[in-house]
Amino acid sequence: MRIAIPIFAGITALDAVGPYEVLSRLPDGEVVFVAEVPGPKRTENGALALTADAALTDVPDPEVIVVPGGFGTRGLMTDETMLSWLRSADATSTWTTSVCTGSLLLAAAGLLDGLRATTHWLELETLRQFGAEPVSERVVVQGKVITAAGVSSGIDMALTLAAAIAGDEIAQAIQLGIEYDPQPPFHSGSVATAPPEIVELVRARRSRLA
Amino acid sequence: MRIAIPIFAGITALDAVGPYEVLSRLPDGEVVFVAEVPGPKRTENGALALTADAALTDVPDPEVIVVPGGFGTRGLMTDETMLSWLRSADATSTWTTSVCTGSLLLAAAGLLDGLRATTHWLELETLRQFGAEPVSERVVVQGKVITAAGVSSGIDMALTLAAAIAGDEIAQAIQLGIEYDPQPPFHSGSVATAPPEIVELVRARRSRLA
Repeated sequence: MRIAIPIFAGITALDAVGPYEVLSRLPDGEVVFVAEVPGPKRTENGALALTADAALTDVPDPEVIVVPGGFGTRGLMTDETMLSWLRSADATSTWTTSVCTGSLLLAAAGLLDGLRATTHWLELETLRQFGAEPVSERVVVQGKVITAAGVSSGIDMALTLAAAIAGDEIAQAIQLGIEYDPQPPFHSGSVATAPPEIVELVRARRSRLA
Repeated sequence: MRIAIPIFAGITALDAVGPYEVLSRLPDGEVVFVAEVPGPKRTENGALALTADAALTDVPDPEVIVVPGGFGTRGLMTDETMLSWLRSADATSTWTTSVCTGSLLLAAAGLLDGLRATTHWLELETLRQFGAEPVSERVVVQGKVITAAGVSSGIDMALTLAAAIAGDEIAQAIQLGIEYDPQPPFHSGSVATAPPEIVELVRARRSRLA
């Protein structure tokens, strides 16, 4: 089963690497990182490069698509090469998925029209502007389309997807293999649980960056 | 604050990328991926390459060291270049940390002698052979040395470390920024919670690989 993860300059690494770490452990999982032009793609802060081994055109019909997010998605929302690939890959995919602002690319490609979907909590309203119905859930399944919330949620999404593809037992074995028994030291991972002053801190920082 | 993450062929990507995603968001966090020879390093399954931008010798005295794991650690446990770098970097570091089998490298370098430490659950006894006292905890703090359990535990470790470095408020903001509100679809992330047959499945698979 071919799993394509399109990457790009300005990616958030964990958006891609979380699902990669889960889905590459599927019995027949063959993950390939693709990009408009193959080669190393720098993360948004520049500190890490992930390598795309293939061009988008080399992988026209993967069975699974996982679109990660990051500031780099902004420029891609009007990039016809990427949007066309997403549309045609989705036309034959078994599963079309995203993490964080990767869902904005799916939405910009017209693939979330009228669907419930999620994204990073700071971008939910952007999703609405592109025709989706934003919901504050961690993993949203709509037929073959699965969207996940911010950054780290890709791990939960990929385990859900692994179970759908290969069954609960395999997904549980993968979870144990990556020892995913999360114990965050704080209860600050969502707008619903974080202290209000922390939410404001993150909102303010994002406004400065925007 | 310079944070060095040594990488190598046969790395488990999430071991490195989880902590990177957290620590790069510290106000003065400067993450650098280092290797014996700079350049792309393939993960254990070959599907992804992470790039090391600097040589170990270029970064002799980082304030924070994060040693990831993966099958590639096996060959490095007798690699004097890596072990010497770990010893000398640890001599001046503020924090020396590991994820998964990265702790086996710290142990092989003699840096965990007599310390409580953890690693991937399948490798706890190996840790004992190298002089550490293995414990089944997700994040183990021993003075300036912090070890974490398998793969995904690096996110919890890094949030703990972020709080120690920059305070709880910053760590909470980072947690919200990466929307780390884990909701695994199964309770299968540790030996203590996974169904016994799943534990056996993973043990058997590992025996075949070994």
